[in-house]
Amino acid sequence: MNSYKGREYGFDQPTLLESAIFNVHVKITIGLTIVFICTLNVQAENGHNLWLRAKSSASVIVVCSMKSATTDIAVQELKQCWHGKKDATIVLTVKHNPSIKGDGFEFGPDGIQANTDLGVLYGVYELLRRQQSAEPIEKEISNPSYERRILNHWDNLDGTIERGYAGHSIFWRKGNDAWRVTEKDKRLWQEYARANASLGINGAVLNNVNASPDMLNTETLNRVKAIADVLRPYGIRAYLSVKFSSPGLIGGLKTSDPVDPEVTQWWKTKVEEIAKLIPDFGGFLVKANSEGQPGPQDFGRTHAVGANMLADLLKPYGGIVMWRAFVYKTSGEDRAKQAYDEFMPLDGQFRDNVIIQAKNGPIDFQPREPFSPLFGALETTSVMPELQITQEYLGQSTHLVFLAPMWVEFLQSDTYQKGEGSTVARCTDGSNFPQRFTAIAGVANIGLDSNWCGHQFAQANWYAFGRLAWNNRLTSDRIADEWIRLTFPRHQSDQSKTRNVSDWQERFLLPVKHMMLQSHEAAVNYMMPLGLHHIFAGDHHYGPGPWYAPTGLRADWTPPYYHQADTNGIGFDRTRTGSNAVRQYREPLCSQFNELETCPEIYLLWFHHLPWNHKMKNGRVLWDELCYRYDAGVRQVREFQKLWNQIQPYVDEQRFTEVRSKLRRQCRAAQIWKDGCELYFQQFSRRPIPADLEQPVYDLKSLEELDFSTIDEFEN
Amino acid sequence: MNSYKGREYGFDQPTLLESAIFNVHVKITIGLTIVFICTLNVQAENGHNLWLRAKSSASVIVVCSMKSATTDIAVQELKQCWHGKKDATIVLTVKHNPSIKGDGFEFGPDGIQANTDLGVLYGVYELLRRQQSAEPIEKEISNPSYERRILNHWDNLDGTIERGYAGHSIFWRKGNDAWRVTEKDKRLWQEYARANASLGINGAVLNNVNASPDMLNTETLNRVKAIADVLRPYGIRAYLSVKFSSPGLIGGLKTSDPVDPEVTQWWKTKVEEIAKLIPDFGGFLVKANSEGQPGPQDFGRTHAVGANMLADLLKPYGGIVMWRAFVYKTSGEDRAKQAYDEFMPLDGQFRDNVIIQAKNGPIDFQPREPFSPLFGALETTSVMPELQITQEYLGQSTHLVFLAPMWVEFLQSDTYQKGEGSTVARCTDGSNFPQRFTAIAGVANIGLDSNWCGHQFAQANWYAFGRLAWNNRLTSDRIADEWIRLTFPRHQSDQSKTRNVSDWQERFLLPVKHMMLQSHEAAVNYMMPLGLHHIFAGDHHYGPGPWYAPTGLRADWTPPYYHQADTNGIGFDRTRTGSNAVRQYREPLCSQFNELETCPEIYLLWFHHLPWNHKMKNGRVLWDELCYRYDAGVRQVREFQKLWNQIQPYVDEQRFTEVRSKLRRQCRAAQIWKDGCELYFQQFSRRPIPADLEQPVYDLKSLEELDFSTIDEFEN
Repeated sequence: MNSYKGREYGFDQPTLLESAIFNVHVKITIGLTIVFICTLNVQAENGHNLWLRAKSSASVIVVCSMKSATTDIAVQELKQCWHGKKDATIVLTVKHNPSIKGDGFEFGPDGIQANTDLGVLYGVYELLRRQQSAEPIEKEISNPSYERRILNHWDNLDGTIERGYAGHSIFWRKGNDAWRVTEKDKRLWQEYARANASLGINGAVLNNVNASPDMLNTETLNRVKAIADVLRPYGIRAYLSVKFSSPGLIGGLKTSDPVDPEVTQWWKTKVEEIAKLIPDFGGFLVKANSEGQPGPQDFGRTHAVGANMLADLLKPYGGIVMWRAFVYKTSGEDRAKQAYDEFMPLDGQFRDNVIIQAKNGPIDFQPREPFSPLFGALETTSVMPELQITQEYLGQSTHLVFLAPMWVEFLQSDTYQKGEGSTVARCTDGSNFPQRFTAIAGVANIGLDSNWCGHQFAQANWYAFGRLAWNNRLTSDRIADEWIRLTFPRHQSDQSKTRNVSDWQERFLLPVKHMMLQSHEAAVNYMMPLGLHHIFAGDHHYGPGPWYAPTGLRADWTPPYYHQADTNGIGFDRTRTGSNAVRQYREPLCSQFNELETCPEIYLLWFHHLPWNHKMKNGRVLWDELCYRYDAGVRQVREFQKLWNQIQPYVDEQRFTEVRSKLRRQCRAAQIWKDGCELYFQQFSRRPIPADLEQPVYDLKSLEELDFSTIDEFEN
Repeated sequence: MNSYKGREYGFDQPTLLESAIFNVHVKITIGLTIVFICTLNVQAENGHNLWLRAKSSASVIVVCSMKSATTDIAVQELKQCWHGKKDATIVLTVKHNPSIKGDGFEFGPDGIQANTDLGVLYGVYELLRRQQSAEPIEKEISNPSYERRILNHWDNLDGTIERGYAGHSIFWRKGNDAWRVTEKDKRLWQEYARANASLGINGAVLNNVNASPDMLNTETLNRVKAIADVLRPYGIRAYLSVKFSSPGLIGGLKTSDPVDPEVTQWWKTKVEEIAKLIPDFGGFLVKANSEGQPGPQDFGRTHAVGANMLADLLKPYGGIVMWRAFVYKTSGEDRAKQAYDEFMPLDGQFRDNVIIQAKNGPIDFQPREPFSPLFGALETTSVMPELQITQEYLGQSTHLVFLAPMWVEFLQSDTYQKGEGSTVARCTDGSNFPQRFTAIAGVANIGLDSNWCGHQFAQANWYAFGRLAWNNRLTSDRIADEWIRLTFPRHQSDQSKTRNVSDWQERFLLPVKHMMLQSHEAAVNYMMPLGLHHIFAGDHHYGPGPWYAPTGLRADWTPPYYHQADTNGIGFDRTRTGSNAVRQYREPLCSQFNELETCPEIYLLWFHHLPWNHKMKNGRVLWDELCYRYDAGVRQVREFQKLWNQIQPYVDEQRFTEVRSKLRRQCRAAQIWKDGCELYFQQFSRRPIPADLEQPVYDLKSLEELDFSTIDEFEN
């Protein structure tokens, strides 16, 4: 496991509100000692303010048709962040409008109308965002793509976070004051809630899917209540991950069989207890019969029986069950096929408040996967995408990888469920077939790190998830554009004030956006081009390990299972004559993936085992192309370095330096990926690395022997 | 200290002679199992055979005018390695010829004539080399440039070697059998002697200049006798380094004052003891009053008094004293000036069998230095160059750096001692002023490593030293050409047999020679371009450390003393208005170095402290040029990698792989040098690294904190 190395925000560092006060203080002294002030300003810029940096530039008059904790926030935000006409009047109206769905809103230059006070708040954030990002503001209705837009926190009760790379949990800690709710806790949770609300995120699963049964203990639930109380005015509902064997583990029952009346009763009591503490409780997330987690199959029951039992109990309170489809066994069957094979027979057997939560790809958040065939396959069962915001397989908090392009690629993939144009987006947001509930989840990258996410640019992934959850038709370009404008505002740095808008756009906005939009493809290139997947060393999922295969480890936890490299070639044969995973896709996709001529080259080695001299569309042989891709990845990161160095005048010193340092580490890691993979695969290809490419600078043996935690220490 | 990592030849591995037998065995079986044979041949190729690989292709008839142990070797070499006309007759004649100097020789297609049997042996090696390297053989006289051509071994009695990167000593070892002379010892010493004789090297100082007094103990001297007996037939005389305080330390005297009669008597007795054991004993090498070593100044005597005392005692036996000029004190005076200032007043005071041994540059074997001003300054005292074959400051046994270009640059430097054309070569070989003895020394890079030198290409530096010691007007191109042809003969690898000569020359000889000839300039570029010097980390002299300056360490042992970088600029001001070291050079050199317009840019920061925006001849500012040089160094090593990968078909697998692996490490080290120096100096220059160059991939802080022994472990 790649241990966390950042500086923690912790409980003894200034919160966002305190930082703001600090800044005010600084401004008071600005006339006295300019140099001193600059230094102070620089040091204060740790990125904690995220994309919420606007200070009002003029006064505004706000008229609101309704008073609630939520509208109070809406009014306050408008007044604090107004960047429109001086003394303009904005009218906020809560009123039913059939064109507005759920918490959607109509907004325009004069005001906002919505069905709910939360809709009004969302409208205010949209208005303010457009002001700050200089987008046009015309009368327009904005409806959310998904009803439930949820962050999944893989936070453990001891404060650690599974696959968390930004410090410890903002919700949980161990120690004497583990259960004490401090003012500082509440301020941090409020900042968290505000950031989520500004994007339209309306739910948070507060604990790890590998859930502790202690999550359902009363003292834990009391803390959940405290968190939920802070989140509520911002429209964020609390959810919990539950361990399916909780009745046996903490209820004192002999079984956790979901059809056992005592078990059902135990869950009923527990749900009632939760609902009493948290009336708007969102529901349960369950990882069942997956990677050692207990589930209904342990008692001879199907996933449907287990999920439905919980769903029935939650229904009276409007709660849902999100049941994860991330299942695979140590069978001889292709792991990529198993979730589909296990869940498709159950289609139609789930309650309408159960949603099957499926990861975007059939394996596990790899740098690139084709979409999971469950999307577009399930027809009478609700299904929701699980995206991963935390970059478990994408350089964690070290690599700059903007994930929107990957998610858009996924959401816009055509499943052909109802003919052409049946994108994953339409198959999950209710457009293609009716779902009682629609939802989308993102595994959060949030921790106590002063900048929340470990990497300044990882904030953009939190931002992008929220924006795509609200509107699954947004482009990556638009999201990046917004995020840069909000996060690195032009007027922020003293230096850039002297430059005009077009200069700022040309020399800062466009290059940085270019870097973000290229960054995912770059990571795919230097890690796993052409459809390669899961070739990480050990279980830390950071560095390369195509060779990693300790004796006795189950095959599908070792890279050779996935790359299948030998002297004949490389790639996992999932064609009709191979594992036949292609069958799980609808025509014409099935044939398209199956046939070499039509299979997109980005998925080539996902679906095909090919000889090293296979001719690519550009005329190169496969081996050479693989080398060119790896090389391209390294070069891309080097270009990011140059680009970032040139935008220095437009960014504060602290964030500039932090990102520069991370880009350096990314460049070293890219080199290690390239060398490790080229040299390992070369043992089988027995072909030279093309002579016009840079040759490896590491020996395979030293990389094979490398404990990547050592690299990490070395890199710090 | 960069610890040795190679595989040692040791005392339990096959010697060259055994390897030869092994090869014969292999050939016998060649008809049976071809594949098996190839494998064996490949595994056997560890480089131990150096440039002596020829096996006779035809029989030859040898007629010799004299019989001696040396002529016996000459006859045997001709018969074993003959590549000329079948059944040709070669006549070897020992006969005085006034055109032949010392151990020179006249050779031609029909035979060799010389004043001594050693001259005949040298002629045989020359003839055989020309046969193997396909050079023309016409009647010609070859006379040595220096009378004494000596290797200095910095070997300690415990078997370690100071600045040795190829394993332990071939002469000394510790343990129970430290003093036992085995047959294996003798075979190895014989191989060593043969290799030296093949180049014309005729002397070896068997122990470290930081000498142990125990060197003069009787049991040590008995082992010296055993070594000298093996070396003698090959014309190699044994020399010893002595500690000046030996009379006090092991003689039981109260002083080691050179004018004390008891001291003189002690030395006289010791010299007699040595001469009795080794009648052709060569003499003493003395490091006196230098880096903590004792010397005559400890007793208020001059270097001359100390050296002359020993010289007088050695004279009856034809011995000489090589007295090192490598002296510097913790004075405020520029270290580069001190040797000159200390020795010039003594010019004329030394006996004619004393030779002042001066390192090529004024500091200490840096990647590039201007020549030491002692050359061309001393006029009535003999002076000899000390070159360093072991790459203490040039990547040790990891980096491929061919040193001939550096040595030729030095030897061809014009001192203007007697007008234009007074090269260092002419000032030291007796051409410019008469010397009773002429000599040249090279600090050996030889150890127990199976390939002798740690790096296959480090053998070329041993070779180059020997060839330049014989003929100080040889070109680097010629030396490289010879060495490649002898060390990687075209006919050696099965694969290359199928290729014709011009293919081999174009695709192997020329690229490899190109790499060798560029390699020194590349190392200067990525380590210390533009006259920078001595900016190594710690005392291991491997990695970069421009920042290295522990509190309390004497200034002239820290890099900031040498680079003098600050916000105003960089470089050591040795002009007339600075330390005035330029004064030590004769006109017009003094003015040429002193003036910015005429100072060669390769020595720019050696002689000048210049602002970061100083305009270079190519129009770039100094800071940018520095970055371009560092960048060029990294790119050059990357090009060497590509080049080496492409010559694979022409080289055996073992040497190909070893060199490839070392080039990879060199490339990583070059990157670390570039990043460390750019980032450190950037703190002062406050200028960006030019945007069209690759940006650093390391952070300065991590490099500053790096213990380079860790890198080394990491790199293995």
